[in-house]
Amino acid sequence: MTNVIDTVPDIDPASLAGRLFQPRSVALVGATDRSRWSTQTFENLRLYSPDVSVYCVSPKGGTVHGVRAYASLADIGAPVDLVYVMTPRETVPGILQQAAAAGARAAIVLTAGFGESQDGILHQSAVVAAAADAGLALLGPNGNGFINVNDRVVPFGLSLPRFPQAGPASFVLQSGGLVKPVLSLADAWGVGVGMVACSGNEAALTAADIARGLLEDDRTGAIGLFLETIRDPGAFRSLAARAVELDKPIVALTVGRSDVAKRAALAHTGALAADSAVTSAVLESLGVIEVSSIEGLVATTDLLARGIRPRGNRIAVIGASGGACELVAEKASELRIELPEFSERSLTALSAVLPDISHAQNPLDVTGFATVDPLLPVNALKAFLASGAEDVDAVLFQAVVIPPDNTPDPDAARRHFSEIAKVVRSAKLPVLLQDEVAAPVSDLGRDILAVEGLNRLAGVEIGLTSLAHAMRWSARRQALISRREDSRAAVTLGPYDKGARFSEFDALWLLASGGVPTIRQTLATTVGEAVAAATGLSGAVALKVCSPDILHKSDIGGVALNIQGADAVKEAYEGMVGRVSAALPDAQVDGVLVSPMRHGGVELVVGINRDPVWGPILVLGLGGVLVEILKDVVLKPLPVTRSEVTEMLSALRGAALLHGARGEAPVDLAQLTDAVLSLADVAAALGGDFQSIEVNPLRADHQTVEALDALILWADEATQSVE
Amino acid sequence: MTNVIDTVPDIDPASLAGRLFQPRSVALVGATDRSRWSTQTFENLRLYSPDVSVYCVSPKGGTVHGVRAYASLADIGAPVDLVYVMTPRETVPGILQQAAAAGARAAIVLTAGFGESQDGILHQSAVVAAAADAGLALLGPNGNGFINVNDRVVPFGLSLPRFPQAGPASFVLQSGGLVKPVLSLADAWGVGVGMVACSGNEAALTAADIARGLLEDDRTGAIGLFLETIRDPGAFRSLAARAVELDKPIVALTVGRSDVAKRAALAHTGALAADSAVTSAVLESLGVIEVSSIEGLVATTDLLARGIRPRGNRIAVIGASGGACELVAEKASELRIELPEFSERSLTALSAVLPDISHAQNPLDVTGFATVDPLLPVNALKAFLASGAEDVDAVLFQAVVIPPDNTPDPDAARRHFSEIAKVVRSAKLPVLLQDEVAAPVSDLGRDILAVEGLNRLAGVEIGLTSLAHAMRWSARRQALISRREDSRAAVTLGPYDKGARFSEFDALWLLASGGVPTIRQTLATTVGEAVAAATGLSGAVALKVCSPDILHKSDIGGVALNIQGADAVKEAYEGMVGRVSAALPDAQVDGVLVSPMRHGGVELVVGINRDPVWGPILVLGLGGVLVEILKDVVLKPLPVTRSEVTEMLSALRGAALLHGARGEAPVDLAQLTDAVLSLADVAAALGGDFQSIEVNPLRADHQTVEALDALILWADEATQSVE
Repeated sequence: MTNVIDTVPDIDPASLAGRLFQPRSVALVGATDRSRWSTQTFENLRLYSPDVSVYCVSPKGGTVHGVRAYASLADIGAPVDLVYVMTPRETVPGILQQAAAAGARAAIVLTAGFGESQDGILHQSAVVAAAADAGLALLGPNGNGFINVNDRVVPFGLSLPRFPQAGPASFVLQSGGLVKPVLSLADAWGVGVGMVACSGNEAALTAADIARGLLEDDRTGAIGLFLETIRDPGAFRSLAARAVELDKPIVALTVGRSDVAKRAALAHTGALAADSAVTSAVLESLGVIEVSSIEGLVATTDLLARGIRPRGNRIAVIGASGGACELVAEKASELRIELPEFSERSLTALSAVLPDISHAQNPLDVTGFATVDPLLPVNALKAFLASGAEDVDAVLFQAVVIPPDNTPDPDAARRHFSEIAKVVRSAKLPVLLQDEVAAPVSDLGRDILAVEGLNRLAGVEIGLTSLAHAMRWSARRQALISRREDSRAAVTLGPYDKGARFSEFDALWLLASGGVPTIRQTLATTVGEAVAAATGLSGAVALKVCSPDILHKSDIGGVALNIQGADAVKEAYEGMVGRVSAALPDAQVDGVLVSPMRHGGVELVVGINRDPVWGPILVLGLGGVLVEILKDVVLKPLPVTRSEVTEMLSALRGAALLHGARGEAPVDLAQLTDAVLSLADVAAALGGDFQSIEVNPLRADHQTVEALDALILWADEATQSVE
Repeated sequence: MTNVIDTVPDIDPASLAGRLFQPRSVALVGATDRSRWSTQTFENLRLYSPDVSVYCVSPKGGTVHGVRAYASLADIGAPVDLVYVMTPRETVPGILQQAAAAGARAAIVLTAGFGESQDGILHQSAVVAAAADAGLALLGPNGNGFINVNDRVVPFGLSLPRFPQAGPASFVLQSGGLVKPVLSLADAWGVGVGMVACSGNEAALTAADIARGLLEDDRTGAIGLFLETIRDPGAFRSLAARAVELDKPIVALTVGRSDVAKRAALAHTGALAADSAVTSAVLESLGVIEVSSIEGLVATTDLLARGIRPRGNRIAVIGASGGACELVAEKASELRIELPEFSERSLTALSAVLPDISHAQNPLDVTGFATVDPLLPVNALKAFLASGAEDVDAVLFQAVVIPPDNTPDPDAARRHFSEIAKVVRSAKLPVLLQDEVAAPVSDLGRDILAVEGLNRLAGVEIGLTSLAHAMRWSARRQALISRREDSRAAVTLGPYDKGARFSEFDALWLLASGGVPTIRQTLATTVGEAVAAATGLSGAVALKVCSPDILHKSDIGGVALNIQGADAVKEAYEGMVGRVSAALPDAQVDGVLVSPMRHGGVELVVGINRDPVWGPILVLGLGGVLVEILKDVVLKPLPVTRSEVTEMLSALRGAALLHGARGEAPVDLAQLTDAVLSLADVAAALGGDFQSIEVNPLRADHQTVEALDALILWADEATQSVE
């Protein structure tokens, strides 16, 4: 079980369209009437891929699935673009060789029992090597293939209740079992789909590669991913960057937040799930939109694929149900979507068309009077748009019922929607139809929506969440496009020995050498030195035992605070040395640190941890209760810019503390940001040497920011502290 | 616009079934072909109420909706059980009189323009008075009526695409516009419905009354409510109590969390939304299950109505999609639903039926091998159940596909599900079918599920949330049934004058007289008294100015901490008196409070606020950052029991602080709980006199709990503090 990709065939993702997604001939190798996999794959090709030549290959020849079976690929005697392999795992490498000989440029391997099981790892390596030798693009193994709706090519192993409606949303899933759920939602909601692909074990092509290939297709508007793991971070970064460039968002549903889910993922495709907080931070930094359910994946990908790009987060709601208006208002508030009051101009315009019992306000309930006058909602919409609709970025038009299939007069329904569509198309901002719930649309409704090019949100709960993502996308994209690394000079650190364990003193010294502001402290090895150091400071001092072996100093009496006067310093020093040597006789003690006492201000915890997949991750939190009890931290992969650090600080739940809550003066945010950036500079200078750096606390007030304590763990260093 | 109910006809909710829900004749008063309301109501009755006699009443007589129209109710000449009134508002009182004369016992008033608009309030009072005079049960006005699916009586004003499937879930909605969304979800998910009623303006019958009537029907299993407001708290309490008694849960979706939603609700039916945190606390205390979306309302009411009562929160998952297994694990973890490891016995039993590539673990992915052997999932289920299934409270059976309507062999599908149903019925614990997403079921699937009595969760996201509610219900119900008020003696407070403004000293004294532990403090009016008081205490003291006019003492130098020695006390006293009189020359100053200094421990904020609807509400929070920055508080209506206070304390996000986080000794929880209960005793003794009591902070450590400061606001007291 491995997250590492072996010898991967060198395939340009942009070439996947031609070589993998659009074959003109497909051979099913291992075809047999006894396997439902084989039957279903053949049926999908036969029913839904009229322009693809399909060949069955079975060693015994004869007839399979009602057509002639060839004993081998070579026997076909015609070019085979794609092989779909269902034979036992040990035979797969040989078949890939034969496939290349038959002219194939891509292979899908359905067979399981490879990287997802302990005894299949070597088999998987053999398959990858064979594909590389043969120059084949390899999808799988343990993957069901794909459904190319746009081109009607369906080398796919599970049955489809009906062929999907074509559209700009495509999906790449690391689980074949989720294809049907995605398609059934798409079918229910009238969501058009361009492609659904399963990446299986990703022995060669990963989800990112496949998505990268789809991104280059003009018909793709956005791509939804289901990810158990990200096997190739480089490919994923490149996918995300290209998506931003093309304004074709990537939407991702990831698993691995819980231990049980991690266990399940490991069993499923041998994927090791990364730390989910790190994954989320990385996705955010790359501009990938994260969702938390399949419903959210389908709805959000659909909305963005349709090119819905509200300029901001303000909506107007026009509905005919008071209850639904309230639910929208509630959900919008939760998602920080605003419903501004209508402008005077809009109010006047609306009042002219509304019945007396309707209050012209946002959300607007045109009331049940819409039952008496079915044109009332669309007239209200028209009046609102004509009044300028200045203060909003999108209109939710709820007051419309998608007609059921047994509607008495379908033509009248079509005409009614045609009127609505005219108004919608004339608008300068997105107007979205919205149902109160994520209920299915009728076949008639689906057809009307497609014909009229109307866009629809799937209910309040799911629909508004997808809208919130769409509202955030453009600003996020713009920020990523215009993102410039701050031009910071590389720092040169003082000499360090990464083999040695570092005490607090050593660690702070190294950080200071790299420009991090640190508290002034003196390492005293005698009582006299301690008294002299304390005398040199005005006011009370703190004494702390200094040892690379002792992490929790206060637990063994290794900390004394608020010590004032020479006698008190002497007494504290001697007591501390005595307690520590009694408690931990074998610990290496370098001396006692003498530093000025600090009061008040805000304490932060700032760390940089090396993630095995994503590299150094900056972690910021407010010290004390907030980080210890509530785990209030924000993460971001390095490098970070100044404005990103500012964003991180304001994203803390306890951010108000920095702005002078509780009667304190506001913290000097510029200095605080500098300190964090300096710490990032140190991490950059340390390169691959460190595993983690933690400053705890970083103390900040209105005039000073300084590190009071720090810990550095070197790469590969085992924690060997004496506790 | 008012939340207060006028003269309400005295109707026993239990009698509603007969008099309102099951009329044998209905008269549509104000029937006209020109109104879609009228047309649709007539059509609903004609199509779906075969056993109900329907009469149209129109002043001009003639033919309406293709049948004879009577000029008046009296002209009908046959008994009329229910009148459905669509005439202008000023005519409604007269019609109710005529209805009673015609033998009617109930009326539905569809007409709008009553309590929801300023100029309709008097009209609404007239209608209520007329109904009371006439002895009619009154539904509305501004209400669409109801759909009684069980008895096929549909006096309802909106068109229905098709008649709902009957079932044990009933709904009462304060918004007619939500009937269709609820029914469309029910239709999509195969949820059977007993009744859907709209309560409109609730001028007489409230949602609680209607639900109370439905509760007594043996066919009702659970009731879902959409609530903009709770107009009659007494009726609501009685509904909730009866629901607990009968084990028929009430599920509620409320609005009013956001200001915009409150504005919308006011416009819709004139409902004033209560503080949503208080509403949630009250619902919780009454055993009402709160949900946050219509999807959640339908799914949760359905699941509970079907009698699904898992004993605890542990599930086994049997699926055929690794991705879906991971999503379930993830969502379960978020909802605190456990997926325990399988027992050795279960593992052995499962291994015997699983293919080699499947890992026997929870969640169990039987793998794509289910495509080869369609009986594999049900065999795994059978094996698991036969092994005892000891460690779980419910089984989610994912590995089954509801057949589409175009399935080639429907009979085979029926036989397959019949086999599954046999296994499910034999189980000693709930076995729930589960789809990965909340997609619609086919008509065939709906029929199979109904015939076989199979229960189904609507996807991972919505379904698991509903399951979590069901898992909590039985324990919650049991706790409510066995709930005994602690037998606490009524306390007698020292004399107080609710006309007077209370200083901190007065407030703490009053609380102490009622048994609340308070810090020892002396009110000094001279320097000498202050020094004497300080000398009487060992260690440092705190000095605070004492005045009913000054709320924020420290802002004007009215607090001095850590004062030690007579000289220091003298200096601090004089400085403070000088500063305060300079800053606020007009403030009434009673003296200076001298109290011992306290360090460490945990500070809480404990308050009791009088809610205008629900009465005194206890509010508990952890002091400092948690309450000030993160608003980490829990609420509960009084009276509270000892175990409820314990629950509240452990429900705080920062609860770990009480249990000795950060190196402190754990707080004495018994003493802390006693202090909170004593405060509640004081509130009880004060009766209606107070508006709010707040102890801030209540300081607690491992041996002491005491109030350090307190504020009492009397009922109707305007805040007149000098700041």
